[in-house]
Amino acid sequence: MEIVAPPTETPYDKREGERRGIIIVNTGNGKGKSTAAFGLALRAFGRTHVHGKLVKIFQFMKVPSARFGEHRVFEQLGIPVEGLGDGFSWKSQDLEHSAQLARDGWQKCKAAILCGDYFLVVLDEITYPLIYGWMPLDDVLHTLKNRPKHVHVVLTGRDCPQEIIDLADTVTEMTMIKHAFDAGIPSQRGIED
Amino acid sequence: MEIVAPPTETPYDKREGERRGIIIVNTGNGKGKSTAAFGLALRAFGRTHVHGKLVKIFQFMKVPSARFGEHRVFEQLGIPVEGLGDGFSWKSQDLEHSAQLARDGWQKCKAAILCGDYFLVVLDEITYPLIYGWMPLDDVLHTLKNRPKHVHVVLTGRDCPQEIIDLADTVTEMTMIKHAFDAGIPSQRGIED
Repeated sequence: MEIVAPPTETPYDKREGERRGIIIVNTGNGKGKSTAAFGLALRAFGRTHVHGKLVKIFQFMKVPSARFGEHRVFEQLGIPVEGLGDGFSWKSQDLEHSAQLARDGWQKCKAAILCGDYFLVVLDEITYPLIYGWMPLDDVLHTLKNRPKHVHVVLTGRDCPQEIIDLADTVTEMTMIKHAFDAGIPSQRGIED
Repeated sequence: MEIVAPPTETPYDKREGERRGIIIVNTGNGKGKSTAAFGLALRAFGRTHVHGKLVKIFQFMKVPSARFGEHRVFEQLGIPVEGLGDGFSWKSQDLEHSAQLARDGWQKCKAAILCGDYFLVVLDEITYPLIYGWMPLDDVLHTLKNRPKHVHVVLTGRDCPQEIIDLADTVTEMTMIKHAFDAGIPSQRGIED
């Protein structure tokens, strides 16, 4: 039996060093970009809430009233999840309204990142308003660069702009190898919504 | 401004159809395989616990006493997380002991999957004992194939055996584009552990 490599990333934990916030990007066309961000928020919260550090999740493409499975649990735990969009924006009859919502939402994100109160801020599906040109990439880059040193930020969505990838510390691409839906299996409640 | 594609997978939710358990695999060398599985468990739990459906997480490469950030929160919520391993098994002085733990652990997983009590069973890092030859792949495949129809199973870990990928409904490969650690940034408590 040959044991060739560490099976997990756990050895990283063994290394002592500087505490600083990192920028994490989950991109690609596969599942798990947002789900991994939510899982990370949960981990951070589990680590930090006893010390009063805060975690906040913003969702650019969800309506403020969206309440999926994880929303209810996060609410119960005390992790705020705020929808900033108007739902399925690509169907929207009023794209300028969607764009304005994204710009307004970004101001809330920016304030949360810059205020320094949060240990972790999740910007879920932020790549879409950026790709659509609804809000300025420069301001996002500037905010990330000038955030308080301890603040972790997770950004998710397909087709992440290269400038954000260049700035990020950790980038994962989620690639769809296969998807149940393509095999004719409908979405399963509690799993995919 | 061109809106070319649905920015999220949400349209899947609109499709009505058969309710059946699916097999989900998160593999690849990137971050987020386990984190996404934990996020999915949370979503499923949020969807289901009001109806008394159960979620269970097994971790093959963690010790039973492992308590990371997410463990504490899951415990608080009432989602059992059970470590089945002896820690960093590739450093183990007694690989046969590690192998036996994996085989014993697999029997628990098998029982949980087959009993039908669970809405979702997570088999975190199960690929490693399989790759190491510590437990029989055939029994895992047989169990997945013969599980009660409603049971969802998530399997994680690098280098997932092709037979499991072939059987799975949804497979995502997490690819590391870059990692903070490689840039000399040490592991950040509450984010990576």
